[in-house]
Parts: sequence; C-alpha cells; structure tokens
Amino acid sequence: MRAIKWNEEQKTLALIDQRKLPSELTMVVCEDQYHTADAIRSMVTRGAPIIGVTAAFGMVMAAYRASAKDVAGLRAELQTASDILNASRPTAVNLPWALARMIRVASEAAESKDALCHRLEAEAVAMAEEDVAINKRMAEYGASLIEDGDTIIHHCNTGALATVDWGTALGVIRMAHEQGKKIQVLVDETRPRMQGARLTAWELQQYGVPFHIIADGAAGHFLHTGQVQRVFFGADRVAANGDVANKIGSYMLALAAHTNKVPVYSVFPFSTVDLALANGSLIPIEERDESEVLDIRLMGEPATPAGALARNPAFDVTPENLLSGWITEYGIIHHPFDKNFEKARKSAS
Amino acid sequence: MRAIKWNEEQKTLALIDQRKLPSELTMVVCEDQYHTADAIRSMVTRGAPIIGVTAAFGMVMAAYRASAKDVAGLRAELQTASDILNASRPTAVNLPWALARMIRVASEAAESKDALCHRLEAEAVAMAEEDVAINKRMAEYGASLIEDGDTIIHHCNTGALATVDWGTALGVIRMAHEQGKKIQVLVDETRPRMQGARLTAWELQQYGVPFHIIADGAAGHFLHTGQVQRVFFGADRVAANGDVANKIGSYMLALAAHTNKVPVYSVFPFSTVDLALANGSLIPIEERDESEVLDIRLMGEPATPAGALARNPAFDVTPENLLSGWITEYGIIHHPFDKNFEKARKSAS
Repeated sequence: MRAIKWNEEQKTLALIDQRKLPSELTMVVCEDQYHTADAIRSMVTRGAPIIGVTAAFGMVMAAYRASAKDVAGLRAELQTASDILNASRPTAVNLPWALARMIRVASEAAESKDALCHRLEAEAVAMAEEDVAINKRMAEYGASLIEDGDTIIHHCNTGALATVDWGTALGVIRMAHEQGKKIQVLVDETRPRMQGARLTAWELQQYGVPFHIIADGAAGHFLHTGQVQRVFFGADRVAANGDVANKIGSYMLALAAHTNKVPVYSVFPFSTVDLALANGSLIPIEERDESEVLDIRLMGEPATPAGALARNPAFDVTPENLLSGWITEYGIIHHPFDKNFEKARKSAS
Repeated sequence: MRAIKWNEEQKTLALIDQRKLPSELTMVVCEDQYHTADAIRSMVTRGAPIIGVTAAFGMVMAAYRASAKDVAGLRAELQTASDILNASRPTAVNLPWALARMIRVASEAAESKDALCHRLEAEAVAMAEEDVAINKRMAEYGASLIEDGDTIIHHCNTGALATVDWGTALGVIRMAHEQGKKIQVLVDETRPRMQGARLTAWELQQYGVPFHIIADGAAGHFLHTGQVQRVFFGADRVAANGDVANKIGSYMLALAAHTNKVPVYSVFPFSTVDLALANGSLIPIEERDESEVLDIRLMGEPATPAGALARNPAFDVTPENLLSGWITEYGIIHHPFDKNFEKARKSAS
C-alpha cells in the first residue's frame, strides 16, 4: 500500500483520500500546485513526512505545467508555487524542508526548461524512495526497544498513510510485529479528526496487529494502572532542544507516561527537525476550523448543541524532558537531544 | 430546571433523558425499581449525586408497589429492590450510600406498611432537597476561589443534570457567573459519551456563560501555554485519603494542571466519600460497552473500521497529591485530606 502514487506519463499525483477512510478507499488526483496545496490544507493527505513529499511533487507538476518560456521564467513560477504550497499548513516543517530542497535543485544550472523539469521530477521520486528507506531504518531502531508481550499506546496516525510507506511510530510497531514479537496496541482515537480510530486502526487491521481503540482521556488510566509498557508517537516539528510538536493530545500522553515511568518515544526523520528554533515554544501551532470539533454524532445523535463554539488547536508541544528518547534514521537519540543528535548525524554521514 | 421530578400522586419518577440531549429535551418515567435500575444502567440519568437520589426514589416506588402484606414482608422486598438498584452501576458510591439510608429508615419501627411507605417517601424527598442545599453551599465555597477574568477547564457534566439541581463543579462555575465575575469555560468534550459537549455546553448556554468546547486532548495545550487559571471537576467516589475516582480523562487533566501549577479542585458532597476505602486503587472502575467508543460519526462518516475492538473504562483515579483541594459542603478542604475533612465535618455538625 502506497498512500501516494506518481503517474510518470500523465505527470499527476494520486493520493489516498484519508478523509474517507475507513469507509472508502478512494484516490484524489492532483494535477498542479493548486490542487496539491488544497489536498494538504483539507487533509486529503496528512502526516508530516507525506506532506513534504506531496509538496515536492506539487513543485514537479507546477514545473511541467508552467507557462514560462525559459529557465529563468520557470524559476520565478516555481518560487510562486513554493509559496502557495508552503502556505497550506503551518506546523509540519517537512513541508518547507521539501520545498527548499526543490528550490535548490531549481537553482542549479540547467540547459533547458525540459531538463529542469526532469531534474525536479527525479528529485521528488528520490525523496519518496528515501522516505521509505529512512522509515524502515527508524522502524528497526525503534523495534529493538519493544519486548515480547508489550502493550503499546500509539497516538494519531503515523503509518504508511502518513508517510510514503511503512511509517514512523507505527512503522516501529509494525516492524516489531513482523519480527514475531507478540504485542498489542491501545490506539488513541485522537480527537478531533480521529486519525487513530479511522486510520491507525485500519492499518493495524491490514497488518494483523491486535489492538483496541481507546478514548484519548483513557490513556492515563491504562498507564497509571501498569497496563502499558511503551508509548510511541510521531512528530510534526522538532525544535533544536528536542521539544516535539505533534498531534494535539501528545503532550498529555507523554506527561502521563513520564509520570508513570513508562518509556515514551517520538519517531521522526531528520526532515522533521527545525534547527532554527531553539525550543518548542517557537513552533507555530495551527488552529483549525471549529467544525472539526463540533460536527460529531454519537450513536446517531448530534453531540454538541446548536450555536456552541469550539477551540481547535491541531498540535501541542511535548517538552524534551518528558521523552525517554528520540528515534531517527541516525539511531536512538538519548538525552541531551541537541548534542547527541548532532553526534549521531555526523557519524552517519 | 430539575433533571428529576417526583410525582406525588402517581408515585412515579420522571427523569430528563440525558441520552437525547442536546437534540431533544424529553422525560423518561419510571414506575418501579426495575425501570429505575435500567435508567441508571443505560444512563438516562448520570452523575453521582443524582444517581443516589434516583435510587432512593426507586426504593419508594418498590415500597408502594410491593406485594407484601405486612411490614416484615415489605422490608424483605425492599432489601431485594436495594440489591437490584445497587447493581446498576459500580463506581459512584452515592448509590450504595442512598440505598443504605433508605434501608435504615425501613428498619425503624413502623406501625403499618402504609406508614413505612410514607416515611420512605419523605426521606427520598428530603434527600433531594438536601442535595440542592448542599450544592448551593459547595458552589459558594468554590466560587470564592474564582477571580474575575478566569478561564476555567471543566470535565464531564457536573451541573443541574448530574444532581437534583444546581450542580457540583458546574455549580461553582454558575455561582461565579451569577456573582457577576467575567469568566469563560473551556468545556472538555469528555469522550466517549460526550457529557461535556452534550450536557455541560447545553447547560452553559442556559446560564449565559461564555464557553468553547475542546477535545479532551487539547486541555494540556491550553494549560501548558498559560491560558487557563483554574480547573474544576466532580467526583464519583472519593477514598479516605482524598484520591478521587471521576469520569475517564480526569486524571490526565489533573496531572497537566498540577504540572503547570494551575489550581485543580474536585467538588463533591459528603455522600461521595467512601471512608471504607483507604485509597483510590481500591475503587471499582466500571468498564462499559465498547460501542460507546466505536459508534461515532465524524462529519457524516463512521470514524472506526468495521470489526475494530475497543476498551472503555468509564472512570479513572486522580491521586490526592495532584489536587489543590477538595470542595465539599463542609468547606474547602486542604491537604492532608483525611485529617482536614474529618475536622471540617466535626466543626460543621
């Protein structure tokens, strides 16, 4: 299963429409940067790694469909396309990271417009392939922490749907399962958009991993009563000190795990790290439309009164001290994050 | 508004059907102990204080409809009725507390079956009136802690719907509002049954208190970023050391408040305290049907895949050390709970 599919002939990008899961498995086809930005904004696709790769292909489509006659004109159009794509969602840093990488390729010497288009396409395809390889590497590092018999809490969706394939935190869980470890997962449903109940539960069904969905507020009970051995979640942006912005609810989960001495890890590739931000308080937190909180039916009945208002921050920040470690393609990073991450990065390159 | 209405002529009990709110305001009429037990079990009515009073009226209906010919026979039937009602839900101790109080009245010398029925009815009516008076007293104690301009997080529903009238934690908020303090409330939606979004939001609309509904997992973000001044919730059973069993999610909320130095209080009457239990780990935690977690639609679509399983603990335990204090009809109790609660109780009597 790939949540993203590049059509080389048509130069179009097909995305699994994650808003429709688990009821329907359908694809949305994007043809240019505008479609792509809208698909990110409206969460046809979501998850920091896949957002980055999707935006990269948005740049490729912008290039192939550009009206510019020469390389200089194409570069100007690509800058505008990058701005449009970058404005689609504010928190995941993979988005500006991928766009900057494409702009860098666009700025290299090119003999023709066509040649540049091909070079951009090759870069986006490589980025997608790298993402899979990185995720598998992270999954192996992370799975080494999981023991036979573990019950694991997972927040949001960080699986194949949130990446090009395999996943970050959910990739770790899938890898442990494929290694034959007997594990079970408590799936945080992850209100308001229910990425846990809708997407992670659906993925775990495909992989055959035993799981139970729980209300987000129930995680503390299971942690406090000794029923959980490990907690894994992803990241949307990681500050230089190791503070992690992730799906709303991650902070309370990490706090409850830390307090009850249950190891809790954030799993993410280097592209999620924003070394320009000293700490998590500087990470911009997206506030999404209140309808995501209010438009909910419970056993057939509306669960909010007409006229009610809501607040809907989509992310929160987990301070670095609550985490037991960080799992990246450079290995498992221990405290302090800044020094050890830099060291692991250097020794990997 | 009264969530419970005793019909003196018919000897029946009308309850607001809280499963239908906020869409419909309808009443369910109970005629005997079986109806009443079923209404408690299926959560037509919910909330520790009102469950106790409802069960007391269940005993009255059992008495009036008893087939026994004499006082001794009536007492035997009442014992059975008490067992039936007591089995309806396990966590709130107000239920066995109210039943024990009715059994005590039933055991007093009585000249006739009729006289005993009248005495039981008078006791249940008195219990309901006491509940209102106790709640107003708690509301005044609690409101003294609230300052003009406060933003308050509230969990579950603890208002007029959860009590005979007025409420516990929500009574505190309502009182502060009626005193003219400018406050606003962040309403934890309280998955899985959404008592916050469905019932507390509806009550706050009636009282004219400004509020926003939030996902339970978002409370930590607002606490961590300094946007909240106080947290209030109720209690379903309080152990002798001050550990509080309350609606699932309360523990994570209290932990996040405590960690961020935001005062957090549990509000409850003496009837919620179980002095027989040394600490919260001894409180029985109800696990309800998984359909409460699974049967949810988001923007019209099912939010869980077919065949998924769920875990659904209805309560969790907040350790006493996380609470800033306990608000009871005997005043605001400070640490340590056991000594100061006993002292306050003695000086009140």
